[in-house]
Amino acid sequence: METELNRRGARPALVALDWGTSSLRAFLMDAAGAVVAERASSQGLRHLPQPGHAGFTQALSAIAGDWLRDGPRLPLVACGMVGSAQGWREAPYVGCPADVTTLAAHAARVDDALGRPLWIAPGLLYAPGNEPPDVMRGEEIQIAGALARQPQWARRACLVLPGTHSKWAWVEDGRVTTFRTAMTGEVYAVLRQHSLLGQLMSEGESEPAVAAAAFNQGVERARASRPGDLTHELFAVRTLGLTGRLPGPALADYLSGLLIGHEIVSALAQPGMAAPDEMPLLLVGEAALSRRYAQALAAFGRAPAAELGNTAPQGLWRFAGAAGLIGAAA
Amino acid sequence: METELNRRGARPALVALDWGTSSLRAFLMDAAGAVVAERASSQGLRHLPQPGHAGFTQALSAIAGDWLRDGPRLPLVACGMVGSAQGWREAPYVGCPADVTTLAAHAARVDDALGRPLWIAPGLLYAPGNEPPDVMRGEEIQIAGALARQPQWARRACLVLPGTHSKWAWVEDGRVTTFRTAMTGEVYAVLRQHSLLGQLMSEGESEPAVAAAAFNQGVERARASRPGDLTHELFAVRTLGLTGRLPGPALADYLSGLLIGHEIVSALAQPGMAAPDEMPLLLVGEAALSRRYAQALAAFGRAPAAELGNTAPQGLWRFAGAAGLIGAAA
Repeated sequence: METELNRRGARPALVALDWGTSSLRAFLMDAAGAVVAERASSQGLRHLPQPGHAGFTQALSAIAGDWLRDGPRLPLVACGMVGSAQGWREAPYVGCPADVTTLAAHAARVDDALGRPLWIAPGLLYAPGNEPPDVMRGEEIQIAGALARQPQWARRACLVLPGTHSKWAWVEDGRVTTFRTAMTGEVYAVLRQHSLLGQLMSEGESEPAVAAAAFNQGVERARASRPGDLTHELFAVRTLGLTGRLPGPALADYLSGLLIGHEIVSALAQPGMAAPDEMPLLLVGEAALSRRYAQALAAFGRAPAAELGNTAPQGLWRFAGAAGLIGAAA
Repeated sequence: METELNRRGARPALVALDWGTSSLRAFLMDAAGAVVAERASSQGLRHLPQPGHAGFTQALSAIAGDWLRDGPRLPLVACGMVGSAQGWREAPYVGCPADVTTLAAHAARVDDALGRPLWIAPGLLYAPGNEPPDVMRGEEIQIAGALARQPQWARRACLVLPGTHSKWAWVEDGRVTTFRTAMTGEVYAVLRQHSLLGQLMSEGESEPAVAAAAFNQGVERARASRPGDLTHELFAVRTLGLTGRLPGPALADYLSGLLIGHEIVSALAQPGMAAPDEMPLLLVGEAALSRRYAQALAAFGRAPAAELGNTAPQGLWRFAGAAGLIGAAA
């Protein structure tokens, strides 16, 4: 699927891949960091045409073979699970604090990816004292892209990346100093698809106003919650349906508000979050989900300073620049 | 499956059914409330031989047809999802406070269950002010059985019924005054079977000492948690595995400790729970799970006053008595 074709005349300077578990996106970029063309495929790590090196090569050829043939000296970079232990080549996690220069210094190299090296960005590890460690892989590049696009926030900000495993990352002087994961999206999905809670969620969508009210009701319930309350509060998704207090389709919105609300309650209690003026929040990611988070954050009086969309291409371009690859293409 | 055959000579006075979604248990009881024989089948509501009245009749005949033929005047009672809207006959929820007399007064009646009426106990509803309501169906009978067996606790106690949907019920002067559900067991099951967290949980069991240590580590993490922390803490199940800090099989124990710990943190913050001497805790249910809860409660300094096992037969017998059915059989 070719989704974007702007600046077709621009001279390509980089092929950049965002290669995750369930999808692969490829970006053709020019020397100024603009996206010339963009493609997406479902050939993530779980759906490669065959296992191992040959499978990765085949998937790469299918999505960007023509770009790479037309530009035999074009550099090639990637981020995401392609650098995990189950990926093409492992790029072990690097510790915080870290910025894009740190990522470039610890990149892993696939020697022959359609006749050229492929540089893969490592993930980040945050392992404070006795607490369980936290990890990210892919989001570190989105963060680099967000800071490239909005350098005014690089001195001090909290970046929120909603998703299957939402990340909250704290940045100081351009480097990620700490971060934490909340499994919001995955918990939502498994409860909806595999638990009793999904049973009463009739198909179809609510009226927008009904959906928004149910979502807000879930957020408010989370806002008032005390330690340990979540597994109790989840049961309300069932009882509000059973007793007819919420219509079937709105139960999914309530569940979403409850889980996103819990994620926000927990994150806003982190050090440095008490003073909104000193810690702007930046939302990074897909538009529809970002809007939900913006709505929930507003209920906490913490409207985000910006919503940035997908910043992976800009992050990959910065990563390639830090690795000294952009000049090499000219 | 006939699992128990004691006091074969005793004169039967009641056939009692615990009929849930996934299983059906039948008890033949004497006039003193003792179990003469016990059987179990998988013909819960989800696995009836056919839909509707005929399916229920067939399942009843398969598990207790001979008992009912031999005792044509034996009364027949049931509890559980058989009384839900998807059951044989709906016994609508009754509000708190409620005791076994309340249940008997609101029983639903199937007119012809193998030639006699079947009386089904209703579930309980707790709907405080503006909060979402809570419901139970089946546990109200276990509670009645527990209080029958241990009447010294009927004046004031908190009954803990661990399970797919754990219930904490507060009893005063023999009546259930309030209760709350935590979806601990179901959240554990769906995360283990359907989320990324299950991937690193290798098959097999840990050494008992390793399993207990991992379970306690999860409980301790829950004990230190703040509002909203659960979806963040869940991710540790992955990272503790990824970084080799816990072996694969122990990750399931850690997850169990984390979720049970959260349930306990939340429940111990309820009104009246601050003074252990005035609020004894009684564990009701299956032995292995009760032991896990007892171990976790001990970490909170709240060892249970008693562990009672399955009290459904005694509860059904009390329900039949309150409905005036026990004398009728003699």
